[in-house]
Amino acid sequence: MKKQSIGVGLMGLGVVAGGVARVLTERAEVLSRQVGCPLVLKRIKVLEADLSRPLAKELGLKLFTTDDDEFFAEDIDIVIEAIGGEKPALDYLKRALKAGKHVVSSNKEVVAKHGVELFALAQENGVGLHYEASVGGGIPLIAPFQQDLVANNISGIYAIINGTTNYILTRMAKEGIDFPSALKSAQKLGYAEANPKNDIEGIDSTYKLAILASLAFHHRVRPQDVHCEGISRLDSCDFKYARELGFAIKLLAIGKQSDNLIEVRVHPVFIPEESLLAKVDGVYNAILVEGDLVGKVLFYGEGEGALPTSSAMVADVVSAARDIVTGSGTRVRWWLEPDKKIRPMAELNTCYYLRLNVDDQPGVLAQVSRVLGDHRISISSVIQKTVDDEAQTAEIVIMTHPAKEAEMQQALKELERMASV
Amino acid sequence: MKKQSIGVGLMGLGVVAGGVARVLTERAEVLSRQVGCPLVLKRIKVLEADLSRPLAKELGLKLFTTDDDEFFAEDIDIVIEAIGGEKPALDYLKRALKAGKHVVSSNKEVVAKHGVELFALAQENGVGLHYEASVGGGIPLIAPFQQDLVANNISGIYAIINGTTNYILTRMAKEGIDFPSALKSAQKLGYAEANPKNDIEGIDSTYKLAILASLAFHHRVRPQDVHCEGISRLDSCDFKYARELGFAIKLLAIGKQSDNLIEVRVHPVFIPEESLLAKVDGVYNAILVEGDLVGKVLFYGEGEGALPTSSAMVADVVSAARDIVTGSGTRVRWWLEPDKKIRPMAELNTCYYLRLNVDDQPGVLAQVSRVLGDHRISISSVIQKTVDDEAQTAEIVIMTHPAKEAEMQQALKELERMASV
Repeated sequence: MKKQSIGVGLMGLGVVAGGVARVLTERAEVLSRQVGCPLVLKRIKVLEADLSRPLAKELGLKLFTTDDDEFFAEDIDIVIEAIGGEKPALDYLKRALKAGKHVVSSNKEVVAKHGVELFALAQENGVGLHYEASVGGGIPLIAPFQQDLVANNISGIYAIINGTTNYILTRMAKEGIDFPSALKSAQKLGYAEANPKNDIEGIDSTYKLAILASLAFHHRVRPQDVHCEGISRLDSCDFKYARELGFAIKLLAIGKQSDNLIEVRVHPVFIPEESLLAKVDGVYNAILVEGDLVGKVLFYGEGEGALPTSSAMVADVVSAARDIVTGSGTRVRWWLEPDKKIRPMAELNTCYYLRLNVDDQPGVLAQVSRVLGDHRISISSVIQKTVDDEAQTAEIVIMTHPAKEAEMQQALKELERMASV
Repeated sequence: MKKQSIGVGLMGLGVVAGGVARVLTERAEVLSRQVGCPLVLKRIKVLEADLSRPLAKELGLKLFTTDDDEFFAEDIDIVIEAIGGEKPALDYLKRALKAGKHVVSSNKEVVAKHGVELFALAQENGVGLHYEASVGGGIPLIAPFQQDLVANNISGIYAIINGTTNYILTRMAKEGIDFPSALKSAQKLGYAEANPKNDIEGIDSTYKLAILASLAFHHRVRPQDVHCEGISRLDSCDFKYARELGFAIKLLAIGKQSDNLIEVRVHPVFIPEESLLAKVDGVYNAILVEGDLVGKVLFYGEGEGALPTSSAMVADVVSAARDIVTGSGTRVRWWLEPDKKIRPMAELNTCYYLRLNVDDQPGVLAQVSRVLGDHRISISSVIQKTVDDEAQTAEIVIMTHPAKEAEMQQALKELERMASV
């Protein structure tokens, strides 16, 4: 029987949920053309406190409920979760899927941590779990992996997927200001939260990378599998040195796959100045994907914000609605390949950037390079500068050729023990 | 009844078709996991001459037929058309759709010229017409418009969608060589065809823009609606002047929409040097889309080549196959909005770049600016240089503020009549 209309339920009334509610109501006609029948926003589940918001009055209070059971009892085909955080969102998602409802979520934390369980639940119940908005805001990313790039063997993902840190790094690079000032200005503009830890320590990026890597490599990549290093230890002089050496500094989320080994890490990276990723500034995100057929493709756009995120969530709602109208259930298949493993970080082979404060006296550079040489780490370029004439200290900046992470860690320990470093 | 397998028929055996055949056979297992049942390449329709190709022997001659009826009599669910050109491809596509077969095509010319007719046929017959590979090679573009961006009101498309011209322009800009040499080198490398007209005169870009604009604006945009100007009149000195003024020169395909008026044009454009599109070099493509929710999103990658194109075509095959397996028929809805119109080019309001050869004598610049002023065209910057001391000629390079195309055309006519210009 042809569906007369599709019922939609929304959970949450933050900025994103508010954006979604507005788009669903204000663009009802265009959306119904996309789907083939009307999408009707039937109920919004909120907390008591949300009822006093202006938007609640605008949309009409009878749309709202604070009661879970009342919400789930409604005739709803698609549940949109825009609450965020692990609890109680996870329970709501499970409840919705078990009840045979298609789910649209922007919840990177829940998808990153519990995706495998949720996908299995969705498949069991013949419904879809849509999460385009969980990574990269409005930039199409999940859909390309699920559809456009399926013929490819994906070898690498190189992503700027946290707008807050990219904004801070851009300010530090362009204006020479230090990390605390850049952070403060990001907070003032609403780009960083009062407690910025999740962003600046790279945790937010590990969630998003876990989602993308799981999808691209068909392996369960958990957030704790991702080696993570934030940006708070970067100094304004690092950007100066980077520029001298021809690089930009970006917080990159990197996923690589070869020989069934998967490498996943988030940390500040020196990127050659002429590459496109180096030119992604401010709160923008960009995701470079390497596939064996497609070569390099890059996706760029605003990674956050109510409007871009609602663009992705409403697109997911339309997609779920099309599945309902055409009776196709779970259209996208999901599976894990059993033979893959996460590569231990100690086996990583990459180039390093070191900045050392040393005594400004003859022979120190020789000592440092001997320690590195002992660990088979070879130097590609060096900058040495006197920093403090009185204290007779200097800074040595070293870029290495590719070296093993384990050797580098050993070398760093030895360097720390040296009196002159 | 659950499908046991899905039959695929391929038309053509050029480089793209060859790539598709290889991917379908070599990656059969991964693809069947994506779909839920095997995809079986049942028949390849070729010309007599193709039968002697090494690939034909490799794949096994019994796969091949040169007979249309034999091909269409085969138990095929999905027809892949990789022949190119308008005829006979169009007839094949119609025949396949009428026979209830899903169709995958990379044929930009046919889709641009006959898309409306073909979409209607597909909808009538409950099958899908997939054409991701028709624009931008392996870069996801059609799917984002059909799915990820559906909630948006698209206001603009700014696209570098012809790799050949972008390669030529990059060589001219970076090496200061002239157009004929850059074209010759592109031909030598196989980036340009022996008869390069379609690429360098912008015709290929008009096909692709017509496809994207129709999709984004829900209006029938035909190739002949697109104002088109190629790159063959550009001189190496234009790149020098552009750089002095802070611009790069790119052949852009531009589609804009406001107040139900659609503006579509392909021509060389001065792009501010710091913008991402200015940094798209060589055979790469990039498409910047502006939507009212998503803001700016950019898609970048290789726009041509057998492998990227086969990446897109096989993804389309998987998408069609999922529709067959889940029984969803034509999942993507297609419609035209009646009230829209194409804006006449004469009403265009934009900034212009003029390079004039003038007599090197006092007062010429004054004359030129008076003519422009008479047509309410105001100048934003001027460069004047003596070019040939003996002949006493100079070059005046002018960038204007936004001006009406009709006024500019008038002004140009008057300038041409001047003895000193």
